[in-house]
Amino acid sequence: MGSRGLFITVEGIDGVGKSTQAALTEALLDSAGYDVLRLREPGGVAISEKIRAILLDPANTEMGDVCELLLYEAARAQLVHQVIRPALAAGQTVICDRFYDSTTAYQAFADGLDRDMVARANELAVDGCRPDLTLVFDAPVEAALCRRSGRDAEDRLELKGLEFQHRVAAGFRVVAADEPDRVKLIDAVGSIAEVFSSVVDELRSVGVAVTENDVAAALTACQGKC
Amino acid sequence: MGSRGLFITVEGIDGVGKSTQAALTEALLDSAGYDVLRLREPGGVAISEKIRAILLDPANTEMGDVCELLLYEAARAQLVHQVIRPALAAGQTVICDRFYDSTTAYQAFADGLDRDMVARANELAVDGCRPDLTLVFDAPVEAALCRRSGRDAEDRLELKGLEFQHRVAAGFRVVAADEPDRVKLIDAVGSIAEVFSSVVDELRSVGVAVTENDVAAALTACQGKC
Repeated sequence: MGSRGLFITVEGIDGVGKSTQAALTEALLDSAGYDVLRLREPGGVAISEKIRAILLDPANTEMGDVCELLLYEAARAQLVHQVIRPALAAGQTVICDRFYDSTTAYQAFADGLDRDMVARANELAVDGCRPDLTLVFDAPVEAALCRRSGRDAEDRLELKGLEFQHRVAAGFRVVAADEPDRVKLIDAVGSIAEVFSSVVDELRSVGVAVTENDVAAALTACQGKC
Repeated sequence: MGSRGLFITVEGIDGVGKSTQAALTEALLDSAGYDVLRLREPGGVAISEKIRAILLDPANTEMGDVCELLLYEAARAQLVHQVIRPALAAGQTVICDRFYDSTTAYQAFADGLDRDMVARANELAVDGCRPDLTLVFDAPVEAALCRRSGRDAEDRLELKGLEFQHRVAAGFRVVAADEPDRVKLIDAVGSIAEVFSSVVDELRSVGVAVTENDVAAALTACQGKC
């Protein structure tokens, strides 16, 4: 390859459909001949999964906001070090389901941590390894909650309620407004194919070369699976 | 009580005798009527102990430097949030065996992380909760290693060798030179009572009121135990 791969992150509240769109994007790029790696945060490698287990354990009710922030950042730093940076250097396209904008939306906008503190923590963890394109999927909170109801067991983070989800969604919108070159707000209301069409437009705008055949192949590959 | 308690940290390479001196200091302040709390890092509370287990697990050979740094900071943030800040606010004197100067010495000076990055990580974790007095115990590395040989099973951190310990010790000396008002270098060569005499001098210099009887009581209380 020779040149650094493209780093794409997908963001949004739980249930908004971002993991489906991440899977479609992987299938699309795969069809178009890109070497693609799809990851999720928090987790993705063994050490980060151990950190994730501490974060999600409902027994850890005493956890302070700053400890929580730094654990997310530690898991992220390991994923960047062990996987993302080497993959990009090898020319792979990396799609990451959640990255540091989630920390901004959840810990700063929803939990109320100082936004500058969160920005400094994000910077420490990624040490210059920033996404080239971030897709923020946006939909009414009530619709997203409905979509995800019954899908997972409730963990520590999901016990926080509707008002919290509204603050997260609002936070993502501010992130998109603050960095319009990198962060694109995608209207996630509509069919999977309609939303994916917006995703394809954004990918093309950063130079990703995909045909309508690749789009059709991705939708077919994911049918019933995502 | 009314006023904030004193926050004292003890630092130095493994085997230098700092835990013994921390125990003596606790006994001294106890004898003099202070309400004292002695802690150790990393760990001290349940969540921080879980983080410590990840840090010390010899299986985690893939851990990157920044992940390691942020895990130390996460454990520290929890200890500050859950124990140190409330104790100081309640007027207790807190003695902590290792704190952020260890991170500076080990991660910046010995592991080679950017010192400014480490300083920013330290600041995030403690969020303004800084020691009033830091005692750095200093002795030749070979003597300290000899003292601790055979004491513990080797963990991931202790596999790093003599050259590493020299860099740590040198780092602590730089920390002491950079912040002479807060950080006092204590010559740790000599008998326990001789070293403790230097500790008592430093405690008195920050307004701690202890008598020679308290000093004798501390040495007696710790005899054979520390």
